[in-house]
Order: sequence, then structure tokens, then C-alpha cells
Amino acid sequence: MTETEEASNIAESAGIVETQYYRYNPLPGTFLMENGLSLPFIDVAYETYGVLNPLKDNAILITHAFSGDAHAAGYHENDKKPGWWDNMIGPGKAFDTNRFFIICSNVVGGCQGTTGPCSVNPETGEPYGLSFPLVTIRDMVEVQHSLVLSLGIEKLHSVAGGSMGGMQVLQWMASYPDMVKSAIPIATAAKHSSQQIAFNEVGRQAIMSDPNWNNGQYYHGASPAVGLALARMVGHITYMSDQSMETKFGRKQKSEKNPLKFAANFEIEGYLHYRGTSFVKRFDANAYLYISKAMDLFDLAGDEPLHKVFRGACMKVLVISFKSDWLYPSYQALDIVRACKLAGLATSYVEIDAKYGHDSFLVETEKESQLISHFLNKVE
Amino acid sequence: MTETEEASNIAESAGIVETQYYRYNPLPGTFLMENGLSLPFIDVAYETYGVLNPLKDNAILITHAFSGDAHAAGYHENDKKPGWWDNMIGPGKAFDTNRFFIICSNVVGGCQGTTGPCSVNPETGEPYGLSFPLVTIRDMVEVQHSLVLSLGIEKLHSVAGGSMGGMQVLQWMASYPDMVKSAIPIATAAKHSSQQIAFNEVGRQAIMSDPNWNNGQYYHGASPAVGLALARMVGHITYMSDQSMETKFGRKQKSEKNPLKFAANFEIEGYLHYRGTSFVKRFDANAYLYISKAMDLFDLAGDEPLHKVFRGACMKVLVISFKSDWLYPSYQALDIVRACKLAGLATSYVEIDAKYGHDSFLVETEKESQLISHFLNKVE
Repeated sequence: MTETEEASNIAESAGIVETQYYRYNPLPGTFLMENGLSLPFIDVAYETYGVLNPLKDNAILITHAFSGDAHAAGYHENDKKPGWWDNMIGPGKAFDTNRFFIICSNVVGGCQGTTGPCSVNPETGEPYGLSFPLVTIRDMVEVQHSLVLSLGIEKLHSVAGGSMGGMQVLQWMASYPDMVKSAIPIATAAKHSSQQIAFNEVGRQAIMSDPNWNNGQYYHGASPAVGLALARMVGHITYMSDQSMETKFGRKQKSEKNPLKFAANFEIEGYLHYRGTSFVKRFDANAYLYISKAMDLFDLAGDEPLHKVFRGACMKVLVISFKSDWLYPSYQALDIVRACKLAGLATSYVEIDAKYGHDSFLVETEKESQLISHFLNKVE
Repeated sequence: MTETEEASNIAESAGIVETQYYRYNPLPGTFLMENGLSLPFIDVAYETYGVLNPLKDNAILITHAFSGDAHAAGYHENDKKPGWWDNMIGPGKAFDTNRFFIICSNVVGGCQGTTGPCSVNPETGEPYGLSFPLVTIRDMVEVQHSLVLSLGIEKLHSVAGGSMGGMQVLQWMASYPDMVKSAIPIATAAKHSSQQIAFNEVGRQAIMSDPNWNNGQYYHGASPAVGLALARMVGHITYMSDQSMETKFGRKQKSEKNPLKFAANFEIEGYLHYRGTSFVKRFDANAYLYISKAMDLFDLAGDEPLHKVFRGACMKVLVISFKSDWLYPSYQALDIVRACKLAGLATSYVEIDAKYGHDSFLVETEKESQLISHFLNKVE
């Protein structure tokens, strides 16, 4: 990329952005995690794009997926790569920063700026590790809620996110229906299926089987990088479709073959190794355990029929799924659509005929952009 | 089970059976593995059910899947469980032992009686480990071919098998078309897709990441049980369908919960652990590497169009796939069907509307039985 191209990419984006921090410091006893434990305080990493209007009614909250972070759009100073949803958030884009004030924060239990198991426990001076309480999707939303209020915002124009981000959207609809004018759950489910739990459990076992994991106490030594990379490899298979993998890699072999018997000589093998090892540089193994468990434990309605959790709500809803997404198949989106309609919510649903599997919501965004842009215009 | 029930199960099966052994001891230079290396000899574990007729023209070869073995039907003395395809092989069953002489042998490179990486190298007195040459599907078929000839059989009524067994069936059709009157490849592919390679690579990495693996030299110490169990867990997810997993386990939790944070409290998690740890008792980690690699390397036609490998052949073919099998999806079966038809072979194809995913060929056998029984009757 030339410097001119770089400058033009930045100009078309939300520009140079910075991560900000908010300390959620509730009065004693006012905030408990869902499982009854509490934390002395929670630091929240977040970013905003666009300008909050004087009425403070143009804010949209973006909720991130499993391995996402607060850096959803624009460029950090000196970075070559923009935020994870930069193709969707920016001037004139689906989440139009010329009109909307976009907020994205890292989830509690994560490892990218918001307090999580790798953060230092102020009471001991040591990283929490496994002493960090189990985190739920509801806890993530509680922390976002306090962040939104701290910005003086009482009503969100929309909450939108894919995958685990979509779970947070559903939780917002249930927990704070009066604060949400519209909601966009994408490629998500109101509860994990057996198969989704199974894949996550394999990832967790890969991490916990790594001798370096050491029951979560590895922050002073070598990290369980091998186990975490393996977990990510499994994850990556589930994020792609059979077809997109076949188109990209097929049975192609590397040009320089490693003569060792079980070397990764197929390109797809090398790609998975690459994704595994690069993930290790930016993600914490304990956070992987906590966040994947939060997804597995998520069951928005529990024993109730799903539509009952939306009773009394009146937001507009746009549900999106992707045809080739076999990790969050469309039947799970349809469960959400049915519940929203039964609850009387104005609900649109589109299954986009995309090829990239679960990753489609991040990479194959043309139709998704049009749908969201159109939907946000209709929200009062 | 009462003793009477047990006796009745045995009576309806191929009965009490014993594994036999055949030593394939080719003259020097007459048998090379596909990659050019050779072994001093290969011991082959095999079983037979039914009686070979005087014309020796009623033999059917059954080829097993990844973790299968020679014990396809009947009961070993004092065993409670029959062979792995006992619901398909026996008196009056699809592979009717009243009419046919059924042969099933463990593949070379395996660990259930046939020479493989855990066998002792007679030249060193130590297990081969990684000094065992890479094995291919063609090598497996060469060894079966010599076994069949050693039994005095020059023409097989049929060759049939599912999954990796189906690959061997296809290889038989290509390598020994004149010896095969009919062929039944089930839930299989003429070459692995990128996604199939990807899942196998995760399994291999799980094994090779286990410190006990020790570059394959673990036969005098602790085995890489944790890595092998993890590999099997991944495998098991791919063998089941989303639907069958949901029906069997859903989000059910164990009645006695383990209070540890990341304990396997969902039933599906416990099931995967159980399948993983029981697999370790009967399977060798190096064999897992060799056999999974053989499947990944299998590419029956290479750069040629698939139908060309069947030219000159004239066997009848029955191709079977299963609707919910997402590991070996029906489009791969259709590639085989198209090639067989282009090669002028009398080919039938059925996609069975089964619910159990890839495992359907082993567990949901009612329609499969009818199809195969009918097909075998039509073969001259």
C-alpha cells in the first residue's frame, strides 16, 4: 500500500481513533455479577466514532463477537489495519458516523482493555486468573449499560452485533427494552445448541490440557500458547464454510514442502497454524475459557418460551443470518424471529445468501450494509 | 441383559468368531508401499463370516472406517458387544452370511492386529514409531488384495465400506476392476476437501502437542492419551449431526454438578470426554496420525478427471450418502456417481434421509440394509 492509498483508506474510515477507558466503580452492593460475586471495579475499554448530538439520541451501541474488541472502526495511530468492522462503520457506511454516534466496548471477562482474568486483582496485586468470577452475557450487558449511562445517553438508536455480539443484543432487548429503539441481532442464537457447546468445550480442553496452563496461573511464566492456538484452529474451521475453504485452499499444497511425515504441507493446514499462532499474540487463554463459557451458559429464556422475555418491549428488530453459516444456522435466527413476532415487535428477517460461513457478517458485508442502512433510516 | 437375551443376540449374529492372522511376506522387491519404501512383512488381522463356496465366488470384502478393525460382526468369546457392523452382517442381514463369505481385515498402518507404527520392527526389536513409512489408501488395498488371493479368491462378489472404507472401495474399483463384480462406496469421497483435511489436522496437532507424544516414541512410557482423547472429541462432533446431538443431549446438564469453573457439566461435554477417554484404551496415537494422513492424501484421480480412473471397469456400483452427514456431504457422493456413469458403469445412487450424520452408516441402518440386500441380489 502506498502512503496515498493509506491516507485515502483513513479518510474513508472513522479516521484516527483512540481507545478510551471508563472505570465502573459501583457503590458497594449495587453491582453483582450474575453468579452473585462482585468485583471491586471494572475498567472498560471503549471507542466512539462520530459525534453525539445535543439531544443525545443518535447513539448506536456495537457489541463484539468472541475474539473482538473495542476497536471496531478507524485506525489507531500508526496502524496499517483498521478496526474489525471498519467496512460497516464510518462516514456513509451502514453505521454512518456522519449521522450516528457509535460506541463499542470490550466485554467484561475479556483481555483487550476491559477487566478480565488477566487483569490485576487490586486486593492481591496479582492477576485474577481463575479467581475471576464466571462471567455471563448479562454481566457484559450490565457493564455496557453503565458505560452508556455514563456518557449521558438514556436511549440508544440501536444495538447491533454478530455472533456473541448478537447474544448481547438479545440480552439488551430483554434487560433494557425501554433504552433500545431498535436492535440488530446477526448470525446468533438465543441459546447455544449442543453442537455449539461441543465445539467450545474442545477449545477449552485444548487450553486446559496444555501443561503451561497450570490451572490458570501462567502469568509469570510461559503461557499455554499451544493449547490456545489449537483452540483457535478448531474455531476457525467453524467460522468458515466448507465452500469458502474449498475455494480458498482446496487441496493446494505449499510450494516448499517440509519433508517431515506429519508436516502441515496442505495450504489449509498452514493457514490454520498461522491463524492459531497469530491469535496467541493478542488473546489470553483464560479469557478464552471465560468468554466461551459465557456463550455456552447463555440461555435467554431458560425454561420460559422465548417470546415472553420480550413482553412489554416495542423496539424495531432486524434479524440477519447467513445461508452458509453452519455454526449459527438460520433455524436459530428463525427462533428469534418467531419470538419477536409473537411478542408483537416489528421484526424483519433476512437470510443473506453469503458464501463465507459464520465469518460472512464480518467479511461479506455488501447486502448486510444495505439492509442495516435502510433499517436504521426507518427507526424513529 | 439376561443370559437368554445374550444367547439370542449371538444366535442372530455371525456367532462366536475369532480374529485370524495372515502374514504377507512378499518376495524382496515385489511389494513397495506407495511412497517407495518397503516393510519386511506385514501381519494382517482379519475375520471371516459365512462359508466360502466351492466355486469361491461368493466372497464379499468389507473395508473399515478410520477407527474400525477386523472385527466387523459376531461376538468374540466372552464379549458382550458384537463387531462394529453386526447390524449389517449376519444370517439374513444385508451382508447375508447364509449366502456370502464375508471378509474384513484391519488396515495396514492401523493398531488392531495388522502391522502399523506400534508394531515391533523385526530389524530393531523396537516399535516402528515414526520410522514406519507413510501409508496410503492404495497400500491398504494392496495388502487386502494379497489377503484375498491367499484365500484362493480371484473375484469378489462385492467390496463395501463406509467413510475411509468407501475410499478403499473406490481404490479397489480403480486398481483391481477385474476382481470386483460390484462395489458399494458409502458416505465417502474420492478425495478429501479442505474442510476434511482441516479437521484431521486439528486431531493430529492435538496428539503431537501432547508432551507425552515425544515425537512418536512413547511406547516405553506414558502415552499421549490427553492429545488422542482431544483428537477423538473433535472427531466425534463431526460424526454426529447438529440435530442428533441436539436430540440426544440438547442443553441438558449433569445431575451432579462439579463446582469447578470449567467442569464439563453439560451432558454433551461429559459424553465427548467419555468418548475421548474410551478411545484411548483401544487406539494408538501414531496410528491416528498415519491413518488420518492416508485419508487426507487420498486423491483417487489426482489431476485426471475422476471417471478416467474407472475406464475399462464394468462392475455394478451402489453409492450411498446420508442427508445429515455434513462431514462427507452428498455432493461428494454425487461426484463419484457422475464419474461412474461417465465411465459407463451401471450405477445406482441413494441419499438416505437419515438423522445421525456421518455415523448414520453405522447406526441408522434400516434403509441401508434394504438397499444393499436388494443390490447384492442383482449382482450376477
